[in-house]
Amino acid sequence: MPHEIILGIDPGSRATGYGLISWEGNSARFIGAGVIRPDPRLNFAKRLERIYSGLTEVIARNNPTVSAVEGVFQSVNARAALLLGHARGVGILAAVHGGLPVFEYSPMAVKQAVVGYGRAEKPQVQHMVQIVLKLSKRPAQDAADALAVAICHAHSSCIKGR
Amino acid sequence: MPHEIILGIDPGSRATGYGLISWEGNSARFIGAGVIRPDPRLNFAKRLERIYSGLTEVIARNNPTVSAVEGVFQSVNARAALLLGHARGVGILAAVHGGLPVFEYSPMAVKQAVVGYGRAEKPQVQHMVQIVLKLSKRPAQDAADALAVAICHAHSSCIKGR
Repeated sequence: MPHEIILGIDPGSRATGYGLISWEGNSARFIGAGVIRPDPRLNFAKRLERIYSGLTEVIARNNPTVSAVEGVFQSVNARAALLLGHARGVGILAAVHGGLPVFEYSPMAVKQAVVGYGRAEKPQVQHMVQIVLKLSKRPAQDAADALAVAICHAHSSCIKGR
Repeated sequence: MPHEIILGIDPGSRATGYGLISWEGNSARFIGAGVIRPDPRLNFAKRLERIYSGLTEVIARNNPTVSAVEGVFQSVNARAALLLGHARGVGILAAVHGGLPVFEYSPMAVKQAVVGYGRAEKPQVQHMVQIVLKLSKRPAQDAADALAVAICHAHSSCIKGR
């Protein structure tokens, strides 16, 4: 796999995590991560716009070469799925508008890639992300999930021999 | 209610209907309507981009002053809700980026406003849209649903005394 800058996205209507890693020669390096939290007093349409514009800004500042988006639990209920769908839709659109290919990975695939166990708990994911990326402190949960999906993409790409 | 050009949107990942009406002095006039059908051979991210860019084009061409988006059935299943959420998310984003206020109406409110019966069938909606807007032929279903939500907004705004 050639040198890539991977943008991981963990979409959510209240909090959308993002994480950037550089991947070269089979090793991951942390670039940055954060969480976009639209002001809850904004109406839903404006909150979606904040997610889109926040990710667009992250892309413009960091020039990733590819994006990886966390998929969805099968068990989620219809209302939660609908809200999540809106956030994922505008997140994916920001990536497409930024010229990035978009890859999607299920939460189970992400946990398998990062922790080695598809049913791992969130603190385990945070812990392994901290170790793999040699971070001095544990990343916030949404940022850790976004970094985890970026790491998953790096590994999956390796496996596919890219 | 002052003169408004209302863009109605009926989002869907396979087909997104749009309809434009002019509303002045308590009477509706048909401007245009259509359906955006992203090429099913495109990947999901690109299909979302087609919905967004299609609506953006419609907005640029017609300069609506407000948008109204069809809400969601409560009974829809989680997977359908998730797909619909993506399409609604990028549709709402196109409206926000076009500078339009976004109003949402439940399918029941739309049917009530157009047919006078919240549980009306789709052909009844098509029929009443044709009559209200004095169309020479029955509009396609997704276009009719979008026109119906635009008509609903016009009526609801009247009721609210705007």
